[in-house]
Amino acid sequence: MFKKGGFVLLRRWTHEGAKSANRAMQFPCLDKLEQVSASLREKSAKNSSSASHAGNIPSNEPVYGKVQSGFELFKSSQPLFLDYGGVLPSFNIAYETWGELNAEKSNALLIHTGLSASSHARSSDRNPQPGWWENFIGPGNKTIDTDRFFVICTNVLGGCYGSTGPSSPDPDDGKPYATRFPMLSVQDIVRAQHRLVKDHFGITKLYASVGSSMGGMQSLAYAQLFPGDVEKVVSVSACARSHPSSIAMRHAQRQVLMADPNWSRGFYYSSAEHPEKIPPHIGMKLAREIATVTYRSGPEWESRFGTERLDDERTPTLCPDFLIETYLDHQGEKFSLEYDANSFLYLSKTMDLFDLSRSHFERSARRRKENSSFYGGQEVQKQYSDEPYPASKRRRTTTLDQSRKDLKAGLEPLKNVRLLIVGVKSDGLFPYWQQREIVELLDQAPAVKYVELNESQSLYGHDTFLLDTQYVGKSIGGFLTEGY
Amino acid sequence: MFKKGGFVLLRRWTHEGAKSANRAMQFPCLDKLEQVSASLREKSAKNSSSASHAGNIPSNEPVYGKVQSGFELFKSSQPLFLDYGGVLPSFNIAYETWGELNAEKSNALLIHTGLSASSHARSSDRNPQPGWWENFIGPGNKTIDTDRFFVICTNVLGGCYGSTGPSSPDPDDGKPYATRFPMLSVQDIVRAQHRLVKDHFGITKLYASVGSSMGGMQSLAYAQLFPGDVEKVVSVSACARSHPSSIAMRHAQRQVLMADPNWSRGFYYSSAEHPEKIPPHIGMKLAREIATVTYRSGPEWESRFGTERLDDERTPTLCPDFLIETYLDHQGEKFSLEYDANSFLYLSKTMDLFDLSRSHFERSARRRKENSSFYGGQEVQKQYSDEPYPASKRRRTTTLDQSRKDLKAGLEPLKNVRLLIVGVKSDGLFPYWQQREIVELLDQAPAVKYVELNESQSLYGHDTFLLDTQYVGKSIGGFLTEGY
Repeated sequence: MFKKGGFVLLRRWTHEGAKSANRAMQFPCLDKLEQVSASLREKSAKNSSSASHAGNIPSNEPVYGKVQSGFELFKSSQPLFLDYGGVLPSFNIAYETWGELNAEKSNALLIHTGLSASSHARSSDRNPQPGWWENFIGPGNKTIDTDRFFVICTNVLGGCYGSTGPSSPDPDDGKPYATRFPMLSVQDIVRAQHRLVKDHFGITKLYASVGSSMGGMQSLAYAQLFPGDVEKVVSVSACARSHPSSIAMRHAQRQVLMADPNWSRGFYYSSAEHPEKIPPHIGMKLAREIATVTYRSGPEWESRFGTERLDDERTPTLCPDFLIETYLDHQGEKFSLEYDANSFLYLSKTMDLFDLSRSHFERSARRRKENSSFYGGQEVQKQYSDEPYPASKRRRTTTLDQSRKDLKAGLEPLKNVRLLIVGVKSDGLFPYWQQREIVELLDQAPAVKYVELNESQSLYGHDTFLLDTQYVGKSIGGFLTEGY
Repeated sequence: MFKKGGFVLLRRWTHEGAKSANRAMQFPCLDKLEQVSASLREKSAKNSSSASHAGNIPSNEPVYGKVQSGFELFKSSQPLFLDYGGVLPSFNIAYETWGELNAEKSNALLIHTGLSASSHARSSDRNPQPGWWENFIGPGNKTIDTDRFFVICTNVLGGCYGSTGPSSPDPDDGKPYATRFPMLSVQDIVRAQHRLVKDHFGITKLYASVGSSMGGMQSLAYAQLFPGDVEKVVSVSACARSHPSSIAMRHAQRQVLMADPNWSRGFYYSSAEHPEKIPPHIGMKLAREIATVTYRSGPEWESRFGTERLDDERTPTLCPDFLIETYLDHQGEKFSLEYDANSFLYLSKTMDLFDLSRSHFERSARRRKENSSFYGGQEVQKQYSDEPYPASKRRRTTTLDQSRKDLKAGLEPLKNVRLLIVGVKSDGLFPYWQQREIVELLDQAPAVKYVELNESQSLYGHDTFLLDTQYVGKSIGGFLTEGY
């Protein structure tokens, strides 16, 4: 091949036997994913052939790294009728406790977790590994003083760290529920916790219900559902109703995960019958990368990573080479086998559906009532219709004002509770105005305390609640000991 | 199954022959994707067997809906040495023009496009379909007056609407480049345009270089590379250097697309040899959904969709049922077969790499020089190394201050040009402070004009430049006619 202007033959690359002007790009990141798939497949086949169990319990469950032995199990054999028409004939709640319940049972504090956390909020004799809120809980000077309080933390219903969720056996056939699991609301999660608190511990009134992110949704829901059963509520980086932007980001995560062929519409648990199945680790990795984008803040990344690449002399590729990319890749990879994909999908949707509006409350109450009356074989549950959705609805049908009034009415019961709301300016997922909104909708009631962290106090975005013992920790600590 | 408390047998659902407590969830959204795959496979097989072409040109190219016949082709047979070490032995640029070039060739205006647009900015006799900036260009009262200006718009190098890109044949074997295509910089794109302007049209000085988003990166790069060859530059919703947050969002889109098994590391073009190949339409749909989240704003979605669902009486599912979800789903679906996946990947990375810093400029110049000296068969190009990256670099090694100074030095040539910078407060992808930064780094030079749209002027976020003829349009129009 000759060119004008004195140029002669190019040094040619070959790709699959063909010549090419440039070298074909390499994909070490995809090679790695393929290796993970291969090793999971091998492991799954080995587990299935060893036949050490009946094949009903997912054989690859142990890969969810955080499943630990240090929790207790509360088993409820009464059915739980759910806000969206489903039912759990029975369920388990995994929980851990720290400190001592006093004789009057007046010092109990319930910690609600975010989406992916276990009941292991703090280390203990039974499980000495550090918990997800290790620095916030403990004897003495910590945010939550275990010398004073009896602290309970549960794995949420729908989770995969001991509580009943999509990876648990359906009591009807002993196989994992998978996507036969019913859709949950945050209120359903809270009702299950309430059974633990009231039926198991006999605690009629919690001293405090404390949560951040999805946990902060739960603490508010606890106060809405059982305003007489809790004295103080702490809600950090949460909201009274999800915002369409947050729904959009979680929608993207779910769709990405569901597009992983290994997800198999939720039936990815390997068994003696299906030793070839492996969990959708690629979809989980990608979903977690997207989630990570929403958990931190731009200014933090600017100061940590900027736009630096691993090596400026290298030709950039489509696999990670910016520092920020390697960070996201690492975060996704860590999480990809740590958490059950179906639990992630269900709880992600549960967060989207969170809405303390009055109309939502009433609709749920009606549905649960209807459903429990069906619970006798006469009628079907109102679940998962086959009918296509009407395509006509394109825009909202209520005004902003109507929906605000509806939310305000739904928050009415919270006026009977002492509330601490914490917002973080650098949080893009649950922006500070959502926390301010709660305070405003409660008419700035005197029992409501509001703390807002500005950018000089935290650049950690939504993750601030996991990291900041100074402003978040001290605010909560002060609020809890006030008048105690 | 009998229960305590008078409950009798549950009405049972069955799933694949097994009983279950709740009905299995339905997935109409996944059914649909499978149907699309099946119909693409059928079409691809049919096209390949009809053997109407040599099999070198992708047989499913016609599915990229926007490829139109109304453009001209500029063919450059001189090699283009690229900033990151690759080479294009020859290349084509698709372009369209409106208005007349005057005798002095002093009224030419080059419009640079965003990532996914074609050269079809406005309708014409050759192609009467509305263009992507239809309302901004035309005779009379439009932003860009075609009675006055000779308007040129190109499809960018790397694109798929007529210009040479990854779906174009590699001259060495006539098969699509795919991921043998070399990595591009925004400056490479601009150099190709400069050849069209100078070599083809003989225009020594553009009256204006105008662009938004990735187009606004190009217009700034045009002024950096050829400050004497352009009088006025308009850059809307762009930046002088990408931000790690934007890189993170684009990284997520790319990884999601690359995880689609149909992507096949870029070699998804069907041919007589490989009639089974189909484009990664699922990955493209998902990537576009994520991108859409970054193109609009939360307040717009709140007022359009709120948190309303298609039907509150239905049990929520993991397929779209919130209005915001159906919107994202629709946007993704529309785009999924309209644009070449490899073009999307390369140009997305090109945006990440955009950096007008002095050090970046110098490194690129050195690399192009080295590379062109290799162009004789003696040495290999410095491309796509197999060496694993060193894992040691975790944090940035330059300070914020150093990198700011570097950027300031890189912007120096722009002081010789009259500049209009437009920022939009509701834009989350190219936040307004990135546009303010350009102005600040130019020391508020008197030739720099800055316009910022607040939330009451536009809630359309990053997409504002496509929609707002009022504030964006009038600002550009006024700037262009000033002193003309």
